[in-house]
Amino acid sequence: MKNLLLCLSFISIINSVFSQVEHHSHSSNRKIEFPDIEGYKTLICDFHIHTVFSDGEVWPSIRVKEALRDGLDAISLTEHLEYQPHKNDIPHKDRNREYEIAKEHAKNHDLIVVNGSEITRSMPPGHSNAIFLNDSNKLLVDDVLEAFQETKRQDAFVFWNHPHFLSQAKDGVARLSDMHKELIRKNLLHGIEVVNDQSYSDEALQIALDNNLTIMGTSDVHELVDWVFKVPEGGHRPVTLVFAKEKNAQSIKEALVKKRTVVYFKDFLIGRKEFLVPLIQTSLHIEEVKYRDDTAVLLVELKNESDVDFILKNKMEYTFHESGDVIVVKSKGSILLNVKVLERKKSFNLKFEVLNAILAPDVHPEINFNIEIK
Amino acid sequence: MKNLLLCLSFISIINSVFSQVEHHSHSSNRKIEFPDIEGYKTLICDFHIHTVFSDGEVWPSIRVKEALRDGLDAISLTEHLEYQPHKNDIPHKDRNREYEIAKEHAKNHDLIVVNGSEITRSMPPGHSNAIFLNDSNKLLVDDVLEAFQETKRQDAFVFWNHPHFLSQAKDGVARLSDMHKELIRKNLLHGIEVVNDQSYSDEALQIALDNNLTIMGTSDVHELVDWVFKVPEGGHRPVTLVFAKEKNAQSIKEALVKKRTVVYFKDFLIGRKEFLVPLIQTSLHIEEVKYRDDTAVLLVELKNESDVDFILKNKMEYTFHESGDVIVVKSKGSILLNVKVLERKKSFNLKFEVLNAILAPDVHPEINFNIEIK
Amino acid sequence: MKNLLLCLSFISIINSVFSQVEHHSHSSNRKIEFPDIEGYKTLICDFHIHTVFSDGEVWPSIRVKEALRDGLDAISLTEHLEYQPHKNDIPHKDRNREYEIAKEHAKNHDLIVVNGSEITRSMPPGHSNAIFLNDSNKLLVDDVLEAFQETKRQDAFVFWNHPHFLSQAKDGVARLSDMHKELIRKNLLHGIEVVNDQSYSDEALQIALDNNLTIMGTSDVHELVDWVFKVPEGGHRPVTLVFAKEKNAQSIKEALVKKRTVVYFKDFLIGRKEFLVPLIQTSLHIEEVKYRDDTAVLLVELKNESDVDFILKNKMEYTFHESGDVIVVKSKGSILLNVKVLERKKSFNLKFEVLNAILAPDVHPEINFNIEIK
Amino acid sequence: MKNLLLCLSFISIINSVFSQVEHHSHSSNRKIEFPDIEGYKTLICDFHIHTVFSDGEVWPSIRVKEALRDGLDAISLTEHLEYQPHKNDIPHKDRNREYEIAKEHAKNHDLIVVNGSEITRSMPPGHSNAIFLNDSNKLLVDDVLEAFQETKRQDAFVFWNHPHFLSQAKDGVARLSDMHKELIRKNLLHGIEVVNDQSYSDEALQIALDNNLTIMGTSDVHELVDWVFKVPEGGHRPVTLVFAKEKNAQSIKEALVKKRTVVYFKDFLIGRKEFLVPLIQTSLHIEEVKYRDDTAVLLVELKNESDVDFILKNKMEYTFHESGDVIVVKSKGSILLNVKVLERKKSFNLKFEVLNAILAPDVHPEINFNIEIK
Repeated sequence: MKNLLLCLSFISIINSVFSQVEHHSHSSNRKIEFPDIEGYKTLICDFHIHTVFSDGEVWPSIRVKEALRDGLDAISLTEHLEYQPHKNDIPHKDRNREYEIAKEHAKNHDLIVVNGSEITRSMPPGHSNAIFLNDSNKLLVDDVLEAFQETKRQDAFVFWNHPHFLSQAKDGVARLSDMHKELIRKNLLHGIEVVNDQSYSDEALQIALDNNLTIMGTSDVHELVDWVFKVPEGGHRPVTLVFAKEKNAQSIKEALVKKRTVVYFKDFLIGRKEFLVPLIQTSLHIEEVKYRDDTAVLLVELKNESDVDFILKNKMEYTFHESGDVIVVKSKGSILLNVKVLERKKSFNLKFEVLNAILAPDVHPEINFNIEIK
Repeated sequence: MKNLLLCLSFISIINSVFSQVEHHSHSSNRKIEFPDIEGYKTLICDFHIHTVFSDGEVWPSIRVKEALRDGLDAISLTEHLEYQPHKNDIPHKDRNREYEIAKEHAKNHDLIVVNGSEITRSMPPGHSNAIFLNDSNKLLVDDVLEAFQETKRQDAFVFWNHPHFLSQAKDGVARLSDMHKELIRKNLLHGIEVVNDQSYSDEALQIALDNNLTIMGTSDVHELVDWVFKVPEGGHRPVTLVFAKEKNAQSIKEALVKKRTVVYFKDFLIGRKEFLVPLIQTSLHIEEVKYRDDTAVLLVELKNESDVDFILKNKMEYTFHESGDVIVVKSKGSILLNVKVLERKKSFNLKFEVLNAILAPDVHPEINFNIEIK
Repeated sequence: MKNLLLCLSFISIINSVFSQVEHHSHSSNRKIEFPDIEGYKTLICDFHIHTVFSDGEVWPSIRVKEALRDGLDAISLTEHLEYQPHKNDIPHKDRNREYEIAKEHAKNHDLIVVNGSEITRSMPPGHSNAIFLNDSNKLLVDDVLEAFQETKRQDAFVFWNHPHFLSQAKDGVARLSDMHKELIRKNLLHGIEVVNDQSYSDEALQIALDNNLTIMGTSDVHELVDWVFKVPEGGHRPVTLVFAKEKNAQSIKEALVKKRTVVYFKDFLIGRKEFLVPLIQTSLHIEEVKYRDDTAVLLVELKNESDVDFILKNKMEYTFHESGDVIVVKSKGSILLNVKVLERKKSFNLKFEVLNAILAPDVHPEINFNIEIK
Repeated sequence: MKNLLLCLSFISIINSVFSQVEHHSHSSNRKIEFPDIEGYKTLICDFHIHTVFSDGEVWPSIRVKEALRDGLDAISLTEHLEYQPHKNDIPHKDRNREYEIAKEHAKNHDLIVVNGSEITRSMPPGHSNAIFLNDSNKLLVDDVLEAFQETKRQDAFVFWNHPHFLSQAKDGVARLSDMHKELIRKNLLHGIEVVNDQSYSDEALQIALDNNLTIMGTSDVHELVDWVFKVPEGGHRPVTLVFAKEKNAQSIKEALVKKRTVVYFKDFLIGRKEFLVPLIQTSLHIEEVKYRDDTAVLLVELKNESDVDFILKNKMEYTFHESGDVIVVKSKGSILLNVKVLERKKSFNLKFEVLNAILAPDVHPEINFNIEIK
């Protein structure tokens, strides 16, 4: 019908015109940004997202647009398989449908969409996300173990969602059940959320470390990302930083399997030492080093290219002339350190504990920079 | 099933906890605010909105939340009757469905939801919104005039959407067709959008005035209000300010029929003189008046309680000591005028042309304040 | 003495270190910026400033730093010759002293400092500034006319300060006395402040036009520029924009004598048509022009390179598709006009009245752009 | 002379008018604010300030206005006795002069001005401030010890300025000389700056603790407070918080003598445990405590009434459900902690290390709150 076409063209006109001027009026940058580390690209990923196709409140197109605005590299829409509150309105026969819609909306953008689903059961095993699926429909089986077996047949990556979920653990403590141990032993469970939505779990982190699981953090967004995570006020959704050889789905899956992740949550970073330390060291870099006039005070400009405001504790024998032992280096900002190195030396080791990052419960990473002074 | 309940309770926990702290972190106010005028409440209304039930991108719940955040008093979800691009996913048999969902979400809030639909045809008559419907399904008929007759049987209020729609008028000029004249004559068309989304039409305003139609402005939102209208950067959706005796659906319908409206669009107000002038006069009020020390310069503090930054042109014989003849009174701000009244008088008439408001194409309202000096 | 040197070097160390990092932490630009116009450089000047050497509250060094922060090209410190409230503390025998100190502080910067003084008398003739003086001491004579004769001998440029000064005119109305007429006739008075500090005078502007005087605007700052003019909140000091062939003192004097000035005051521009219109036309320029898709709506991007938010009134026969007839183009911002040109034409004249600029009391300039469409 | 009076009244008119409207346009609060602690008023003091009467760049009136804007309770203008670079312009015979001018400007305000001077010598003993003087002139003697003896005769409070001054210690390390030991032994030196301008010294803090000296922090401002400490961008001058029984000069002196101080420097607090811990505990307070729905997660709202953004490290056996172990509680903000207390208990001890506060080099205070749950 003619009027249908008119409507569609109306929308596309509006969009095309306004995309042209957007760069003039948009001042602040909401994109989540971290530098690449040696050997890997740092990809920003969110693999736990809902739409109207289960209990979310938006069409998949909005999820694609939110991801583009947030500067994400990859997402997965992971509808509840067993929980379909909108099913009277959206019968949702094909459980790959939201993936297909999202993929269509992402096709002209540099955003990877991977097929996923949330296996939604009571505890144990609670909720789990399977991503990199070929066909979500095949997971619709009564027996939960059978559903996990199917993820393996499809060579999916599977992680345990919010093990500290208050509805399933009144004390908020993540605990490994026998079923989880079995899933891990059978290589049916590969990762675990230590961060979900607004929540973080120290115990989940310990489970990840003890059981060799990939450390995951996700938004689990149902409503709007901007509202839930207060993006206009400077907030951001939790994401998993994935260290991949290339920016493609295969490489991301490989990185997840090999546990190359760091979680970015509020103003906190959580990850294994071998990825967390290089990430922070690359995020922070020395801009300029010189002695202050004729003194033995070394001026070191430290610049932060990442999205995090780093809280650093001085771990050197030397003190600072212009601050106490705990300093903050703002995101995209820099700080001029005045290090009292006592005598004019040629080289020097700058050393900090990073207080808003953790390797394990109560363990903060240490970073250090070998500085040569010309 | 048990896990379904768990999911629901999880969401409600999150919501209840976070609503408690929201007032601490939310600094800026996005609510659209205008004072009441003599005899009427000033209600903020948006009667042209889409959801996933036609070609919009969100579930009706988001539209309710957006409205609450924007401080609206009334909304209508007006899905295209004839245009249903999501129908494979959302069969949408009952065309009152989005209304019912929205009403359920609004039930504990002071937000009026009225049933509506968009009759979506090629020109003439183009698109029209019928609101205050009892049953949208009955409008699903082939003959467009028959659809309009049905709106009358349901005692609906009907207005012509975006008469300047570029897809239906390449020059963007609103023109009255014979069919429109007939609809008006038969009392089947009561209002006309002079503002739709990002657009305004001087010619539509002239048609409203010439044909005694209610002046309407709507968002016609399909995506997110926050994004389309750049709310975090200070923007707002276009709304119709309705001057109603009471805050209820019946009173709003009566006000619309009696053409008691002003449209608020970007930083502009559009409306009939009998409502526009009182609205501006009430929005701006004199806070304090006194002579500056021993001089003949009168200090007049003018305060603006509305959402609009008013641009005022001095229309007096007197000039200002501290500004030129064009001044801006910021929303929620005030300005201290230094009026050179030449000699110390007891009373005085402050007079301005309001440059960012119009009564008719090229006609700006004049406001004036009789000031007594003690 | 050794410790004196130590103190001095301490201050210079602090300054040198911090000037290095200032560009990292300073986000917003307070510099007053206007583009050059055809044939002339647009120089930002403030020729009415006080320090502790009369009744001001800062040392001349602060005035130099304020000027550098404000992006000024030229200043003059114009101490009251006859009013020396600090004379017990600062005997101030040599009335060129503040000029010499300022010049020393400015010597490594691109800031022109000219010698000046304020002849401070009761009305008539009230207060007048003489700038480009060789020796201010010679103006210290009882007879006011003799002081003016001395300015002529020194080939100074002389302007009447705040002719609307409330202490000398209770109604704030600038009026030309016989003495002023005589000074003008004898070529002893060349300019007049239409703007001083927070004040503007329509009547002073009329006097300038009727008597062929240079239009001047100055800060007359006594306290801190940042506080008086609320610079951190986005305010600025009033300045005289001088259109000079070169950036040097001689060229500025020539420009002042030839009345090549525009005053920038709050969000207002005041000046003669031959300089005001080119200034606005150069400040605003067309970035891109094309038809919107297949319509007859012309998209014109208008960009504002100046410091002023321009308030423009549409003076064309055509209307806009996305705004009313009064628009604001923000400083350093741009606006995308949707001009309904009715049919696809090859050329087009964009025409506005500039509401926040004046040529004469109640007369706003018109600007227009001839646009060719490819 | 008549015109002198006119000038003065002009300035007072301007001031009176503008002070009326200032509260409308001033949005952000720059006042330094800390709550009182049990038994004492917390007074905000800066006892090291310069004006044009030695090597500063402003008249004393500006120092009074800056102090009022910063919300200070007490200041002292402490000109260098032996260093008078402006003496050709400002002979400065009476060394109490700047104090008298400041006192006159402060007389209608709630600001205490105390007489002070800076004894400015090479090292040892370097620079020292004597405050609460009766007559600064008597300190103008050749022999430095004689100058200190005179401060004692006047019952002044004396502190060592910037012991880590780079011009006098190239490595920036504060070291106690024999002369300092003698001054302390003879009770001629009572305090020591651990903070001066942009600098902090861990070694000076250790000297204070080892020698029972009052811990001091000062701005040592020469230029403008707003510029040096970037006040519009959110910075503040360093101050000494003095815990006095009453707000008067005598009570402040007693508090200084009794070492009741905490220094507020950038985002850091430095002080003795008996004052630092109560200050932080009073600054932070528990707003509301309850269990989250039916869970064993305790919701604790922690509110920060102070000027400091506190960086807190969890020192409990319990972890948080919504954050890691290091949290930031913003100035004037609050945070909702979700403490996983494991089972629903009736009382509970909330415990933190305060990372941006120190009691001694490398020693951060611990705070704790006994919480009863109803």
